[in-house]
Amino acid sequence: MMMASQLDDELKLFSGSSHPQLAQDICDYLDIPLGRSQTTRFANDNLFVKIEENVREKDVFVLQTARAPVNDHLMELCIMIDALRHASAARITAIIPYYFYVRSDKKDEPRISVTARLVADLLAAAGANRVLTMTLHSDQIQGFFRMPADQLSAVPLICEYFADWDLSDFVVVAPDAGSARRAGAYAERLKLPLAVGDKRRSSNHDDTTTIQGIVGDVEGKNALLLDDEIATAGSMLGLAAYLQENSDVEEVYAGAAHGVLVGPALERLARPPFKEVVVTDTLPAPEGAGNCNLKQVSVAKLFGKAIRAIHTGESVSAIFR
Amino acid sequence: MMMASQLDDELKLFSGSSHPQLAQDICDYLDIPLGRSQTTRFANDNLFVKIEENVREKDVFVLQTARAPVNDHLMELCIMIDALRHASAARITAIIPYYFYVRSDKKDEPRISVTARLVADLLAAAGANRVLTMTLHSDQIQGFFRMPADQLSAVPLICEYFADWDLSDFVVVAPDAGSARRAGAYAERLKLPLAVGDKRRSSNHDDTTTIQGIVGDVEGKNALLLDDEIATAGSMLGLAAYLQENSDVEEVYAGAAHGVLVGPALERLARPPFKEVVVTDTLPAPEGAGNCNLKQVSVAKLFGKAIRAIHTGESVSAIFR
Amino acid sequence: MMMASQLDDELKLFSGSSHPQLAQDICDYLDIPLGRSQTTRFANDNLFVKIEENVREKDVFVLQTARAPVNDHLMELCIMIDALRHASAARITAIIPYYFYVRSDKKDEPRISVTARLVADLLAAAGANRVLTMTLHSDQIQGFFRMPADQLSAVPLICEYFADWDLSDFVVVAPDAGSARRAGAYAERLKLPLAVGDKRRSSNHDDTTTIQGIVGDVEGKNALLLDDEIATAGSMLGLAAYLQENSDVEEVYAGAAHGVLVGPALERLARPPFKEVVVTDTLPAPEGAGNCNLKQVSVAKLFGKAIRAIHTGESVSAIFR
Amino acid sequence: MMMASQLDDELKLFSGSSHPQLAQDICDYLDIPLGRSQTTRFANDNLFVKIEENVREKDVFVLQTARAPVNDHLMELCIMIDALRHASAARITAIIPYYFYVRSDKKDEPRISVTARLVADLLAAAGANRVLTMTLHSDQIQGFFRMPADQLSAVPLICEYFADWDLSDFVVVAPDAGSARRAGAYAERLKLPLAVGDKRRSSNHDDTTTIQGIVGDVEGKNALLLDDEIATAGSMLGLAAYLQENSDVEEVYAGAAHGVLVGPALERLARPPFKEVVVTDTLPAPEGAGNCNLKQVSVAKLFGKAIRAIHTGESVSAIFR
Amino acid sequence: MMMASQLDDELKLFSGSSHPQLAQDICDYLDIPLGRSQTTRFANDNLFVKIEENVREKDVFVLQTARAPVNDHLMELCIMIDALRHASAARITAIIPYYFYVRSDKKDEPRISVTARLVADLLAAAGANRVLTMTLHSDQIQGFFRMPADQLSAVPLICEYFADWDLSDFVVVAPDAGSARRAGAYAERLKLPLAVGDKRRSSNHDDTTTIQGIVGDVEGKNALLLDDEIATAGSMLGLAAYLQENSDVEEVYAGAAHGVLVGPALERLARPPFKEVVVTDTLPAPEGAGNCNLKQVSVAKLFGKAIRAIHTGESVSAIFR
Amino acid sequence: MMMASQLDDELKLFSGSSHPQLAQDICDYLDIPLGRSQTTRFANDNLFVKIEENVREKDVFVLQTARAPVNDHLMELCIMIDALRHASAARITAIIPYYFYVRSDKKDEPRISVTARLVADLLAAAGANRVLTMTLHSDQIQGFFRMPADQLSAVPLICEYFADWDLSDFVVVAPDAGSARRAGAYAERLKLPLAVGDKRRSSNHDDTTTIQGIVGDVEGKNALLLDDEIATAGSMLGLAAYLQENSDVEEVYAGAAHGVLVGPALERLARPPFKEVVVTDTLPAPEGAGNCNLKQVSVAKLFGKAIRAIHTGESVSAIFR
Repeated sequence: MMMASQLDDELKLFSGSSHPQLAQDICDYLDIPLGRSQTTRFANDNLFVKIEENVREKDVFVLQTARAPVNDHLMELCIMIDALRHASAARITAIIPYYFYVRSDKKDEPRISVTARLVADLLAAAGANRVLTMTLHSDQIQGFFRMPADQLSAVPLICEYFADWDLSDFVVVAPDAGSARRAGAYAERLKLPLAVGDKRRSSNHDDTTTIQGIVGDVEGKNALLLDDEIATAGSMLGLAAYLQENSDVEEVYAGAAHGVLVGPALERLARPPFKEVVVTDTLPAPEGAGNCNLKQVSVAKLFGKAIRAIHTGESVSAIFR
Repeated sequence: MMMASQLDDELKLFSGSSHPQLAQDICDYLDIPLGRSQTTRFANDNLFVKIEENVREKDVFVLQTARAPVNDHLMELCIMIDALRHASAARITAIIPYYFYVRSDKKDEPRISVTARLVADLLAAAGANRVLTMTLHSDQIQGFFRMPADQLSAVPLICEYFADWDLSDFVVVAPDAGSARRAGAYAERLKLPLAVGDKRRSSNHDDTTTIQGIVGDVEGKNALLLDDEIATAGSMLGLAAYLQENSDVEEVYAGAAHGVLVGPALERLARPPFKEVVVTDTLPAPEGAGNCNLKQVSVAKLFGKAIRAIHTGESVSAIFR
Repeated sequence: MMMASQLDDELKLFSGSSHPQLAQDICDYLDIPLGRSQTTRFANDNLFVKIEENVREKDVFVLQTARAPVNDHLMELCIMIDALRHASAARITAIIPYYFYVRSDKKDEPRISVTARLVADLLAAAGANRVLTMTLHSDQIQGFFRMPADQLSAVPLICEYFADWDLSDFVVVAPDAGSARRAGAYAERLKLPLAVGDKRRSSNHDDTTTIQGIVGDVEGKNALLLDDEIATAGSMLGLAAYLQENSDVEEVYAGAAHGVLVGPALERLARPPFKEVVVTDTLPAPEGAGNCNLKQVSVAKLFGKAIRAIHTGESVSAIFR
Repeated sequence: MMMASQLDDELKLFSGSSHPQLAQDICDYLDIPLGRSQTTRFANDNLFVKIEENVREKDVFVLQTARAPVNDHLMELCIMIDALRHASAARITAIIPYYFYVRSDKKDEPRISVTARLVADLLAAAGANRVLTMTLHSDQIQGFFRMPADQLSAVPLICEYFADWDLSDFVVVAPDAGSARRAGAYAERLKLPLAVGDKRRSSNHDDTTTIQGIVGDVEGKNALLLDDEIATAGSMLGLAAYLQENSDVEEVYAGAAHGVLVGPALERLARPPFKEVVVTDTLPAPEGAGNCNLKQVSVAKLFGKAIRAIHTGESVSAIFR
Repeated sequence: MMMASQLDDELKLFSGSSHPQLAQDICDYLDIPLGRSQTTRFANDNLFVKIEENVREKDVFVLQTARAPVNDHLMELCIMIDALRHASAARITAIIPYYFYVRSDKKDEPRISVTARLVADLLAAAGANRVLTMTLHSDQIQGFFRMPADQLSAVPLICEYFADWDLSDFVVVAPDAGSARRAGAYAERLKLPLAVGDKRRSSNHDDTTTIQGIVGDVEGKNALLLDDEIATAGSMLGLAAYLQENSDVEEVYAGAAHGVLVGPALERLARPPFKEVVVTDTLPAPEGAGNCNLKQVSVAKLFGKAIRAIHTGESVSAIFR
Repeated sequence: MMMASQLDDELKLFSGSSHPQLAQDICDYLDIPLGRSQTTRFANDNLFVKIEENVREKDVFVLQTARAPVNDHLMELCIMIDALRHASAARITAIIPYYFYVRSDKKDEPRISVTARLVADLLAAAGANRVLTMTLHSDQIQGFFRMPADQLSAVPLICEYFADWDLSDFVVVAPDAGSARRAGAYAERLKLPLAVGDKRRSSNHDDTTTIQGIVGDVEGKNALLLDDEIATAGSMLGLAAYLQENSDVEEVYAGAAHGVLVGPALERLARPPFKEVVVTDTLPAPEGAGNCNLKQVSVAKLFGKAIRAIHTGESVSAIFR
C-alpha cells in the first residue's frame, strides 16, 4: 500500500550522550554502524546537536537513558528528535532503557506534576513516533503515550542470572506493600515465597516511614530484595537492617532492573549483610562499582531483537515468549 | 483578567441515565435544581439527547457512572458533552464516580487496548474540559488525562464507617500482591496490621491463579477484605474460603469504594463467612441488595463539596484535609 | 519514497461482533483469511478485545456496522482500533457499511448533538486513519471527517435488482420534500418519473406530520418507495396507505440501501399494499425476515473491490464507473 | 468560576472589507462604535491588517461575508483573526452572514475538495473560537465545525416580507428535487402548496440538465421561486421559462436568503415573467440593482440580537422563537 | 519497515495557476508528465479544483508561487492540497518558490499578524506534509513550520550569473542595516567588499526613512545592489539615486532572488544608473520586462534535483554542496 | 461573557530557581507576595516541584530565565507549568526574560534543530497559555509561538542609561553584517552613526571568521559595541582589538540586553580598551562581576507593568509608548 524506494530501507541508530556503550553494543548485535552525530555544549550552556549523515526516509532509532544530568539528557534527546524530524526521517523511535521521571507517575499530593506523563507529551511534541523502554515503575505509564510504546521486561534477565543457583532456602522480600506487586513478579518466576515489609508512617508525624514488621516467613532464609530500581539503596538498606536485627536471615542479595546507584548506594551495598547486587546495564555502572559486588546483566541483545522486530514488522511479543 | 457578565454565574448539574439518584442527592446538597435534559432511544437503538435549558457561558457538570449497560452510558455521556459544548457551555466537567473501563489500565498482554486511556481520549474528543472521579483502580490513571482531573478518595468514607467499632482483633487482608498497595492504604488509616494472599499461577498451566498461602498473621482474627471495587466477589470469595479453611479466622467483612456487585456477587456475599459488606453509592445498589448485609455510604456530600470548590476556585484538597 | 520491507505487505481484515457474515463474505471475495481477534464481555459489562495475530506494519481493515446494540458495537470498534494502533498497525481503515448515528447529521433543534460528527471525532481519537462507508443519509457527512473517507453508493446495486423488470408503469415516490433528492437519484438512474409526498405539520400543533397530498402523477401506476434506509417503516407505511386510499396505485414496492428493519417494520412490510422489499446486506437480515418478501442484495463484492483498491492505491472511483 | 476584571467587559465588532455597511448597521443596533482597524494592500498584492485599538480580554466579533473577491475577503478574515488572537482577545467570533464556499459542501465527484469544511478548518487554524452565520446551503455544514457555530435562518425574514400579501393563488416552486427540502421550508411557513421541477440529465450525454416537467399543480397560479441563494439566476430563469411556456402561470416572484446576483443575474431577473426579487442584505446589493425590482430585507437587527445573546450568555434560540 | 506496493511509486507534480511554465520546466527536467488538474472559477468567484488523475498512495508535489492575485493563488493551493489529501495521496509537498506573505515575518507593531506563520498554519490545516521553498526573507521563517520545510538558496544562482565578469572594481551595497546580512551573503560568495546605506527616520516625524550616508567605500566603483526580492524597486531606486548624487559610482546593477517587479518597478529599473537586473524565475517575468535589461536565471533544475532527492530519500543538502 | 466569581481574581507570580531576585523585585513593584512553591532534586537527579498554595482559577505567571544549568531550568519551568495546569490555574503565562535557546533560531546547516522553536512547542505541550519575554535574538522568534507572546524591548532601557552622557564623538559599531540590524536600532535611538565590522571566512578554509575591515567611519571616536547579548564576549573582544589596532578609537563601551557573561567574558571585559559594560538584569550578575566595570539596569518595573497590563487587559504596547 505504501510506496517503495529501492534505494534504502536500512535502519539507523543514533546515541545521545548518556550511554554510548549500550548503543554501540546494540549496533554490534545488529551488525550496523552507529549513526554519526555530534552534541556540543556552547559557552552559554545551550546544547547543539548535528546529525552528520543523511536520514531522509530512514527508520531511525535514538537511544538515551535517564542518567544524570537527567534534564540535559532529556533535552538532548528532544533536540535530536526535532533535528531528525525536520531532516525528514521516516519514523523516529526513542529508545529509553531507563525512562525519564519514571517515579513521578501519579498525583499523590495536590499541585504536583505527573512528570512521567509530561515527558511523554514532550517527546511527542518534539516529534517522536514511538517509544521503546524497559520495566517501568508501574505498567500504567505505557498508557501515558498516545504513540505506540513497547515495554521490555528486565525480570526474565534478572531471574536468569539466578538460573543455576540453589534457591531452596531463599525468599523474595518486598520493602513495602507498594512494591509487593513488583517483587511478586520475580517471586512467581523464581518459584520462591514472598514476604513484604510492613512499613508505616512514624508516630512522630514527620512523614517518614519505618518498617515495623515483616509480613511473611523469612526466618533462617536468604533474602532476595528485588525491585524495579535501586537509587540510593536507602529502602533496601532499611529492609536489610530490619531483617538482620529482627529475623534470623542469613544472607541478603539485592537485584533490580535499573541500577541508578547514586549517592551512598554503592557504599551501602558494599557492606554486610549484602552479598551481591544484580542489575542490568540500562544505566552505565557508576564509578566505584568495583567496591561492591555488583553484577551487570546486558540488555543489548534484548533491545537489538526488539529493534529488529520493530523495523521489519515482526511481532515483538513473539520474540520474547 | 477574564470578562465578567453580571447576568449569570450559576453552576448547572445534568445527569445521565446511569445514576439519577446520586445526581439529585448532590443537587440537594448544593441546593440547586437538577439540569433538565432528555435522553431518547430511537427504534434503531440510537440515543438522542436534548439539553432543555440554556447553558451558554454556564459552568456545567454532567454526572455519569460506569454502570451497565456501560457503553450506552459512556456514549450518552459523550453525546451530552458534545451537545453542551456546541451549546456554548463555558466549561464542562464530567463527574464519573465510578470511572469507565477503570480496570483496563495497562497493556499486560500484547495487542490489547488500555481502554481507561482510550476513554480519557474519547471524553476529550467529545469536548470535556475536566473530570472529577473517585478511587481509580490505580493512581496512574489520572495521568491518562491531558485535562485537569480530580480524584476523590473513598478510603476515608469507608474507614469512617468503622470509626466506632472495636477493631483490636482485626486484620486487613489483600487478596494478592497486586492489591497489597490498595489494602495497605486502608490498613494504615485504620491502624491495623496487613496480610496478603499469596496467589500463584496454577501448576496445570491453565492461566488460573489460586491462593497458596497467606503472607502475614491472621490466626484468630477478624478479617477485613478491602479493595477498590467488588465485581463478582470471586476474588474475595476465594480469599474468604481460604481463610476459613486454613486459618482460625473468626469473621469476615468486605469493603470497597465501588459496589459493582454483578453476577453471583450478592449471593456470594450473603453467605458465611461474610458478615457485612460496605460500599459507597458511586453505583446504585443492585436489585436484591437486601439479601446480603450490604451497607451503602453516601458520596453525595463529598462530591457536592468538590463541585463547589471547582466552581468557586477554592482548593479541592484543602476541603478534604 | 517510503521504505519497503520485503517481509510483508498483506492486508488484514478484522471483524467486530456486529456482522461477521459480511466480513467473511468480503474475505472470501478477497481470498484472504479473516483476522483473528476475540471480544469478551466481563461481568461488569466492560468489553475486552484481544487481537490475536501480529499486525505490525500491516494495512488493517476493521468492519463494524451500526446494528443494535449500537453503542456496544461503536465502542468495540473504538477499542479494536486503539488496540491495533498501539500494536503498530501501519494504517487502520474502519469499514462501516451502515454508519453510526447517520441520521443525527444536523442541529435542527437547539442544544442537541450532531452525533454523526461526534462519531467521526471519536473514531479519529481512537486512531482510525480512514473510513469506508456506504450511502450516507446526507452526502455532507463525508465532510465531518478530517481523514480520507470513501463513500460507496448502494443506488446502483438496488437499481440493478430491477434491471430486467418492465418498469414502464412505475413511478418513484419520495415520502416528503426532504427525501426528494435521494429518491430522485434512484428515479434518474431507473429513468422513471418522480412523485413527492406533501407532508405538513399537523394543524393540532403536536409536532407530528402527515401526508396531505402527492406532488406528481401516480394514478394507476406501481409505486417504488425508495430511500436510504428503512427503520420502523412508519414513513413508508404512511405513504403507502395514503397512496392506496387516495390514488389508484396498483402495487407498492419498497427499497433502501440499509435494511434497519426494527420494531414493527417487518410486520408492516409483510402486509399489502407492499409486494416486495429490497435492501442490501449492510446489516444482517433481522430475525423473521422470511415473513415479508424481503430481498437482500450483497455488498460484499463492492466492498471487496474498494478494499483492494485502497490497499493497492488504485482509484476507487475508477472501479465503479 | 472565571476571574472577573472590573475594567472591561464590553464587546467589540470589527469589519472586514466585504460589507462595512452591515457591520455599521449592527453596531448602530447594538449602540456601540465599530472597532477601528485598517487593511492595506501592498504593491505585491499582500494584505496587511492593523487592529487599531486594544482588544486584550475583550469579546471580539469580526464580520466578513463571502462577496467577491472571495479569496481576498477570506484571507483578510483569517489575518484579522490571527492578529486579534495574538493581541490577546478573550474570544473571537467570526460573523459570516453568507458563508464562504457554502456550495462546496459534499464530495459528489472523485478528487475534489469539500471546501466549506476546509474553510472551517482554516478559520480554526487562524484562531476563531466560534462562528455565527446564516442559512447554509445544507444544515449539515454546521457539523463541519469543531467550535460552536450558530446558524440564523433567513426564512422567517423572507416570509415576513409577504406577511400582508394575499397569497391564496400562490404556489412555491423548487427548481429540482435537490432544492425541494429548502423550498418546502418556505412553503410550510407560508402555508402554501409546493411544486418541484423534474430536472433530468440531457439525453445527449453532455452532463447538462434540463427541466422536463413540473411535479405538482401550478396551473393558473402565481409562482414563488424560493431558495437559499440566487447567483446567476440561471436555474430560476430556466424554471420560470418552463413555467411560462408549459403552464398557465401568472406571475413569478423570486426570493432567497442570499442575493449573490452575479453575472447576468440582474438582467435576467429584470425581465418578465419576474415581477419582484426579495433577498436579505447578507451581501450588499450589486451595482445596477435598481434595474430590476429588487427588495432587500435587513438582517442587522437579527444579527445584533444574536451577538448580544452570545455576549451575555443568553439563549440564542430563545430570542428567535 | 513500511509496506511496499509493487504497483506504483512514481511521483506526481501538479501546478496551480500561478506559474505553470516553471512547473512544466521542472517536469521536463524530471522527465515526467505534469499532473492533470483543472481549476474553475464559478460565477460567485468561488474556485473549484478537480484533480483529474488517480493519486492514491502517490508522492505528490504541488507548485504554487506567491504571484498576484496572491490570495486566489494561496486559496487555490489550499484547495488542491485538501482535494489531494482526501483523495488519499501518500504525501503532499507544497512547492512554493516565492513564499506567501514572506515579508510579514515579525510583529514589529502591536496587533498585527505574523502572516508568514499564519500561512504555514493554513497549509498544515489544509493537509500539506512538507514544504519546499527558496530564499526566505529571513531564515527564521523555516521555524514557522511544524512539518519538514526545505529552503533552497538563490544566492549561488545569482552569483553564478556573474561568474565570468571582471568584478575587480565592484562593491556590493545593501540599502540599509536590516538588509546588510542578506547583501553580505552575496558579497562573501562573490569575494567583494560590502557597503551599507545608513537609512534613518526623517526628522519631520512622518515615519518615512531616507538614506543619509553610505557606510563603507563606494567611490569610483560599480555598485551591485543585491537583496532577496525586488518589488516596486523603490528602495533600490533611492539607493541608486543617492549613490549617483553623492558618490562617484560608475554603474549600478540590481539583483535579487525574487523578481516581484510590480507597479513602477520595471520603469524605474529601465532608467540609468541601472544597467542590468538579474532575478530568478521563481516568479514569471512581468509583462513589459523587455523594456528594462532584465535577465532571468532558471531555478527549474535546482527544484527538479531537490524534488528528486525528497522523493528518493537522498540528502537535499548533499546535492547542492 | 465569561462567568465571574466574586471570590478571587488576584494574580499569582511564581519563581523557578534561575532568578528569584528578579521575581521578588517584580512582586515588590506589583505589591504582591511571591507565590509559594518548592523545587527538590531527588538523589536520582529528577526534579520535583510542589506548588504550595491554591491556584484554581487564578491568573498565574511563572518566571524562569535561561541561565545555566539551562536544561534544568527549562525542565523545571515545564514541570511547574504542568503542575499549575493540572491544579486548574485559569491561565499560565511563562515569563522568560532571557529566552531559552534564543540563538538557535534558524536552520543554517543541514540536520540541526531550530531549538528556539522546539522550546516554544515544549512550553505549549506543558500547558503554557502565553509567553512574556524580552529582546529576542531575532524578531521572527515571536512567530514560533501559536500562543500570544509579548516581547518587551531592552533597547530603550540601555539607551536611557546613556541619557545624560555627551555622545557627540561616539559611534555605534556592530561586529558584522549579521548584527547590523540590531546595532542599528540602538544607533537610531541614540541618534549616533553606525559602523559595521566586515567579517569574512578565513582563507585557510577552517570555517573561522575574522574582521578584515570596518565599514564606516570610526577614526578618533569612542565606540559603543551594542548587541542583544554578551556571552563569552569573544566577538566584542575581536572587534575591540581590531578597532584598537587599526583605528584611532579612543574608548570602547559594551552594552547588551542580556548579560550572559560566561567563561572568559568578565576577564575580557575587565581589560582595556573596555571602559564599561551595561546590561539589564534579565540574568543575575555572574560572580566576580565586580572585577569589571559592569552596570546592571533593572527590568523589574518594565516586567511588572507588562504583567499588570496582561492581567487587567490593558494594552501592553500603550504602556511603553
